[in-house]
Amino acid sequence: MSFFEKYSKQFSKKKNFLCVGLDPDLEKIPSRFLKEENPLWSFNEYIIQKTSDYAVAYKPNLAFYEAFGLKGWEALEKTCKTLRELSIPVILDAKRGDIGNTAKQYAKALFEDLKGDSVTLSPYMGFDSIEPFAAFKNKVSFILALTSNKSAKDFEFLELNNGKKLYEAVTDKVVEWRADSPNLGMVIGATQEEALVDFSKKVKNMPLLIPGVGSQGGSLEKVVKFLYKENALLINVSRGVLYAKDPEKAASSYQAQMQELLS
Amino acid sequence: MSFFEKYSKQFSKKKNFLCVGLDPDLEKIPSRFLKEENPLWSFNEYIIQKTSDYAVAYKPNLAFYEAFGLKGWEALEKTCKTLRELSIPVILDAKRGDIGNTAKQYAKALFEDLKGDSVTLSPYMGFDSIEPFAAFKNKVSFILALTSNKSAKDFEFLELNNGKKLYEAVTDKVVEWRADSPNLGMVIGATQEEALVDFSKKVKNMPLLIPGVGSQGGSLEKVVKFLYKENALLINVSRGVLYAKDPEKAASSYQAQMQELLS
Repeated sequence: MSFFEKYSKQFSKKKNFLCVGLDPDLEKIPSRFLKEENPLWSFNEYIIQKTSDYAVAYKPNLAFYEAFGLKGWEALEKTCKTLRELSIPVILDAKRGDIGNTAKQYAKALFEDLKGDSVTLSPYMGFDSIEPFAAFKNKVSFILALTSNKSAKDFEFLELNNGKKLYEAVTDKVVEWRADSPNLGMVIGATQEEALVDFSKKVKNMPLLIPGVGSQGGSLEKVVKFLYKENALLINVSRGVLYAKDPEKAASSYQAQMQELLS
Repeated sequence: MSFFEKYSKQFSKKKNFLCVGLDPDLEKIPSRFLKEENPLWSFNEYIIQKTSDYAVAYKPNLAFYEAFGLKGWEALEKTCKTLRELSIPVILDAKRGDIGNTAKQYAKALFEDLKGDSVTLSPYMGFDSIEPFAAFKNKVSFILALTSNKSAKDFEFLELNNGKKLYEAVTDKVVEWRADSPNLGMVIGATQEEALVDFSKKVKNMPLLIPGVGSQGGSLEKVVKFLYKENALLINVSRGVLYAKDPEKAASSYQAQMQELLS
């Protein structure tokens, strides 16, 4: 099943945009999981059980798995497999970006071995670092346009000689590339409120991955107001669900908030 | 031992800048390795045996290991361990770039678990994606400035409103960050010949990782002419050594060419 088929199925069932970021941190997960054979996997399994009635997608960030070597990789494989059985799309948040023959290897790792439905990519090196991922027609590649962190100002907001900001040039390029590769999407940080209006003018019928709501402080209301329209939204919450006292309640509450904004 | 200590030791012994890119590709390695229990590791072991009298550093690109899941990770661990025992610096070519709390996890994976001496990073998200790596004072982080691929033109060459190109803005920022983090270096593609002159004016006493010599066509002569000076150069060759008929002869020939340019 393609990313879009899975997403549509989940969205029509759950009527919200919640993507749960699976970033298990041993210093933060409940201590009972530390006794398990593979704490990362046991924690993820628990989170998926508690939240899969609400989430339309999950987004494991690879850093949290690579930090535990072989054991981490194993936890990631199990997580992907479980979500595949539930037909819930998995976004592998890897932010890869490398030259063509290397990008092919990453695409193999993420789409063939881990069987992810989707990845995140860095735009810096240009289209030949994107193309080997875009070649997987059933998968979606989300390209970083404007990120939610403070240092986004260092480069993403640089003004070009045509008056555009760098993140706008990236956005325009992604829109251009989509003529041939409609399976490209973008990452837009919810904390960048002023930019959301601009994006709302440029971005249509596109899958958009939105981090920065929740502990980073982005406004759910503005995201839905400016970016919903025809776009396939995925609004990511990581810590706000994983480390909530009751993850199920947290996920259900996000679902309710999003449903209200949709009504 | 720090990256710089290892590098100095290797450079004073071998008097050249050869960094061998360990990017094992099952479609290209000699077929006898395919019968081994872990072909990636057996091939790397062979290459290291044949070339460690010449190379001052090795650069495994993580994509080639991640493409083989658990087995790939195991090969990478063994490769790092072997090079550590030889006191030859390992550059983990990962091109990571993610927000602070995630970057910390990547730094843990690359510097603590794999015990790499150095990494490559993407600049797009700005300093808070670099800082957790820079915090490892004994390690070196190479930031992508100007890459060797064709699509570098998509964004890296964009002209800013102050007349600079994006890659120059990145260069200036890295030079600025080095005031507090002298363990930052840069990646400069050897194929970008016109830009090498500019770099030679800006970059001093800095570790520089130079891909693009060899099968990508960059000029070794120009790289040494414009970038040597006080910089700690690491000139990477991957396919030109790994898939040469005789990898030892290829490495020895690169050493000889570099030594001649140095004399």
